[in-house]
Amino acid sequence: MTEEDIIQLFFNKNAEPKSDCYVLDNKYLVTTDSISENTHFKTNWSSPKDIAKKLVEVNVSDIAAGGGIPTNAFLNLGLSKKTSKKTWIKEFSFELKKNLKFYSIELSGGDTYYSENTNLTLTLIGKTNHPVNRTGGKAGDYLYITGDLGLSEIGFQVLSKKIRPDFVTYKNSIEKHLRPVSKLFFMQDIFHKYSINASMDITDGLFQDSLKLAKASSVHLKINLDQLPNLERYAKYIGVEGVLSSGEELEILFLSSDRIVESGITEIGNAEKGNGKVTFTQNGKKIIPKSKGFFHFT
Amino acid sequence: MTEEDIIQLFFNKNAEPKSDCYVLDNKYLVTTDSISENTHFKTNWSSPKDIAKKLVEVNVSDIAAGGGIPTNAFLNLGLSKKTSKKTWIKEFSFELKKNLKFYSIELSGGDTYYSENTNLTLTLIGKTNHPVNRTGGKAGDYLYITGDLGLSEIGFQVLSKKIRPDFVTYKNSIEKHLRPVSKLFFMQDIFHKYSINASMDITDGLFQDSLKLAKASSVHLKINLDQLPNLERYAKYIGVEGVLSSGEELEILFLSSDRIVESGITEIGNAEKGNGKVTFTQNGKKIIPKSKGFFHFT
Repeated sequence: MTEEDIIQLFFNKNAEPKSDCYVLDNKYLVTTDSISENTHFKTNWSSPKDIAKKLVEVNVSDIAAGGGIPTNAFLNLGLSKKTSKKTWIKEFSFELKKNLKFYSIELSGGDTYYSENTNLTLTLIGKTNHPVNRTGGKAGDYLYITGDLGLSEIGFQVLSKKIRPDFVTYKNSIEKHLRPVSKLFFMQDIFHKYSINASMDITDGLFQDSLKLAKASSVHLKINLDQLPNLERYAKYIGVEGVLSSGEELEILFLSSDRIVESGITEIGNAEKGNGKVTFTQNGKKIIPKSKGFFHFT
Repeated sequence: MTEEDIIQLFFNKNAEPKSDCYVLDNKYLVTTDSISENTHFKTNWSSPKDIAKKLVEVNVSDIAAGGGIPTNAFLNLGLSKKTSKKTWIKEFSFELKKNLKFYSIELSGGDTYYSENTNLTLTLIGKTNHPVNRTGGKAGDYLYITGDLGLSEIGFQVLSKKIRPDFVTYKNSIEKHLRPVSKLFFMQDIFHKYSINASMDITDGLFQDSLKLAKASSVHLKINLDQLPNLERYAKYIGVEGVLSSGEELEILFLSSDRIVESGITEIGNAEKGNGKVTFTQNGKKIIPKSKGFFHFT
């Protein structure tokens, strides 16, 4: 079964989630993400510190996309024989607390149990005065992305010893793959200054994620890949498909009726009247990516 | 490391949690519990339906103890090769939805991912007008328990083919071990009628859990085991220690200044001035249980 089929079974409706967070009482955000050994990290690639940081950042990123700030965390620690050892758990807990403290998040609950492979779930509650989900985009909006895309996939291929890019890309890609950083504070500024209609973070790659945004907002997104920062540089190693399917980037994709010119943000397209479609152009020509990105259960 | 040591690392203070739920804004309850293949269930003992039911009930039980009713659920599905198969996931999702519907809980988010062994995390949000935790017990309070204790451990030993009790105990114990049921609606009535000062559910056994309650409320709990329903009947198979360390019972242990006489509730002791101590008596004599119950990491 595909992941979409499974989600459909539980939700009995359009399987595309409408938001990175659940909005409670129009003022709280709730999000939860798990990372599992050998699916989301390998203990021979990632240190306990890397894993703790990634667990916090992937969850904070959802709160960042939802237009809030995180306040409370709940930690479900499924530890294996290896990761329940004192040295591992000490390093992990030290870094987890450090990262929660950085974001002023209180650890408020959770549980600890034995699991044959390490399974870590973090649930975050956040506050917001202006929750943003994926559904508010309108025809006429401009489409923006923070940072660039592709490094996470390059990092994965570097660690898998499949490719060996130039030194700067090599270093940056490993950093981005093992220790991605959410755009929380950056987006707080942007939400404060501009009117953001719809927003999400890039976790499954631009190809899949832009389609989710287009469907949720019922618009036709036109994306001009010539505008995507560093596309050619990264495509040299993993192809355009590789860049468009690079997941866990924690960059924010958003629609705004404002024309935004800010360092760290790039306008990569716009929303037109339509119904859940995305068109990519490169060098003035329409392109259809070959890969659909990463699906867990296909 | 013991589970307590691990919790201490993360919380940097008294490791005993003060509540089954986190209380947000004095009106929301948040709780989360994971169940992991071969730690909390075995797929050759439990059907997908049993597992779905258990996942819901163990979490609802925390909301029951906290004095609330659950409203929203978040599901992190870590599915293995076996459990991501269509038949398994269909049965599981059908039963999960049925159980959430029974409690009027909305499935509001979560994620789906591949895990080498099945790891299921449910997070519940609930509402309450009178949150109850473990800290409010006072000297002079009466100590109560719902139902009886021991069947879950007997069920485990029956399924492990270690013991073979009388037919009724045999049947009831398997039912209680595989398909425990929370005391949510029952406790809602009790919270409505009486003044409950402190409350928790039995997940690690009366021995460990009563100590947590005594510590959190800073009282000396005196427990008269002669009052514990069915103690002798169940101790015949697993000893008094077995009964006192039987976990995942989902019965509620609580302190009230009211004298309560209700079917399904038994007064088993009282709280005196003191500081986090529990004394058990049986046949008028003090007893010290040999077993400390189940610790995951020792």
